[in-house]
Amino acid sequence: MKTLVIGGAGFIGSHLNDALLKEGHKVVSVDNLSLGSEINIRHLVSNSNFSFYQQDAADINKLSDIFEKEQPEYVFHLAANSDIQASAKNPEVEYRNTYTTTFNILSCMGKYNVKKLFFSSTSAVYGDKKDIILDENTPNLSPISYYGAAKLGSEALISAFSYMNDFSSLVFRFPNVIGPRLTHGVIYDFIHKLQSNPSELKILGDGKQTKPYIYIADLIQAIIQFMDIDDAGVSIYNLGVEGNTCVTRIADILCEEMGLTNVTYDFTGGKGGWKGDVPKFYYCLDKIHSAGWIARYTSDEAVRKTIIEILNNRKCN
Amino acid sequence: MKTLVIGGAGFIGSHLNDALLKEGHKVVSVDNLSLGSEINIRHLVSNSNFSFYQQDAADINKLSDIFEKEQPEYVFHLAANSDIQASAKNPEVEYRNTYTTTFNILSCMGKYNVKKLFFSSTSAVYGDKKDIILDENTPNLSPISYYGAAKLGSEALISAFSYMNDFSSLVFRFPNVIGPRLTHGVIYDFIHKLQSNPSELKILGDGKQTKPYIYIADLIQAIIQFMDIDDAGVSIYNLGVEGNTCVTRIADILCEEMGLTNVTYDFTGGKGGWKGDVPKFYYCLDKIHSAGWIARYTSDEAVRKTIIEILNNRKCN
Repeated sequence: MKTLVIGGAGFIGSHLNDALLKEGHKVVSVDNLSLGSEINIRHLVSNSNFSFYQQDAADINKLSDIFEKEQPEYVFHLAANSDIQASAKNPEVEYRNTYTTTFNILSCMGKYNVKKLFFSSTSAVYGDKKDIILDENTPNLSPISYYGAAKLGSEALISAFSYMNDFSSLVFRFPNVIGPRLTHGVIYDFIHKLQSNPSELKILGDGKQTKPYIYIADLIQAIIQFMDIDDAGVSIYNLGVEGNTCVTRIADILCEEMGLTNVTYDFTGGKGGWKGDVPKFYYCLDKIHSAGWIARYTSDEAVRKTIIEILNNRKCN
Repeated sequence: MKTLVIGGAGFIGSHLNDALLKEGHKVVSVDNLSLGSEINIRHLVSNSNFSFYQQDAADINKLSDIFEKEQPEYVFHLAANSDIQASAKNPEVEYRNTYTTTFNILSCMGKYNVKKLFFSSTSAVYGDKKDIILDENTPNLSPISYYGAAKLGSEALISAFSYMNDFSSLVFRFPNVIGPRLTHGVIYDFIHKLQSNPSELKILGDGKQTKPYIYIADLIQAIIQFMDIDDAGVSIYNLGVEGNTCVTRIADILCEEMGLTNVTYDFTGGKGGWKGDVPKFYYCLDKIHSAGWIARYTSDEAVRKTIIEILNNRKCN
């Protein structure tokens, strides 16, 4: 099957390219390389089943040209601003890179009669529900970040476009996703900080921010497993793992793996890492577990595995 | 207080101008006159508390100039594509006129430190929930129209902007709104059709589409009553009336008031008026009733009153 992976040079999209090719699909990958990188796809350049367009999905005319030329059968939409902390100061980034890309992609799907969509949504659509266990039926979704708002708006668009054009759309609400090729986030930041100063680590908030971290291979495996579900309309799943990991625990695991002792943690204070950050959330995973998927790695295991891989990779470079 | 009414020459916005002025507020009205009309505000031109800008809220620079010059204290956002049937064929209209206007208005509020917002949302955010009584806690909002999607996306933006900028936002989810200055919709269409051919009336669908119709004065009274509620964050209410009116009943009332007998109804068939139309919905009104508001007119009364007023107005012109 010919697939179109939009955001295909990014952290998640590039892993998805690899998996789709391994499954025997053709992959046309599109990325504006603003957060994605050619490094993530350079191993695919000689693969005849792979092609790449450096193009911005916010430009509907250019995107439309790609749809017309390539005639994909399945669209994986992973194009978004993924640096949530950055967009807290500039919501225009989310309007353009997260919402408008979705609108354009759905419009092109309608125009070129593509019926199957995968969309990467997020826990941020729920907002800060404190200790409520979040399931797919949790009411009053009220995002507190511009990122969460643009993703929830995208879900609303997918709902209407799917109804109006008979799309079959699969939506996963991701937790924090980690693994090789990570470009930002707490693990990435901490490694940088400790490599430059191994005696002190500045931690945003009180370090008690607690979230589930999913290992990239688990997430990709879920996409591959569910992509052929032929449910009409929109299917939404919380995608998560067993357990959660607090920020201080991440620092502890990192210090262990780097062999550092006596690192002083310097907390900036407050509950959230930044305004718009949801400090804690808990997923109910009954729906996706009942559908036959379970993550291989717990949250703590995903954190440790990612740290080891990033540290090893840096040693190699 | 200085208020900014965006969409202020439209059906609802123009009635809101009148009410705000009557309450002693200053009104700065903005409209691109695409669906709104100068006729709706010409009686206010000599009022020193009223001013008008013909400007499109989709142009953020021009909108920003108005905020800078006028320094409003309260923004009423009624700018949207309101012709839902028209946008079913062109979702770009909703992206631009409904979602982008919201994003721009919220951005300007943040920039110019305006803390109070009223937003006109819609029953269409729920999607087609069949016989479920819709309350504000109904989960899985899944709009089937581009209009509903753009409004739900707007609600998501309001959630994030309100949190990030400490706005106090009041959101009413309107049902069908009718009364003088109506520019489209079933009553408007039927009057036109019967005035051109009083012996036959073409009715979209099976005529059993059943919705609550609110009279414009009731809706405006609710906005005025709730606008000073100082709840932090976002307050969402279903705004509705007692009872519902089916399309065939509207035709019957209209024939009665026009003195027409023996009109043949020609049904196009199917359950919805057009693809994306929710054929029936029922609101739970407990939340707004508990807050001390109740509509003066039932749905049937609102329909009859509107018909009489539009017919009388046509005789005068």
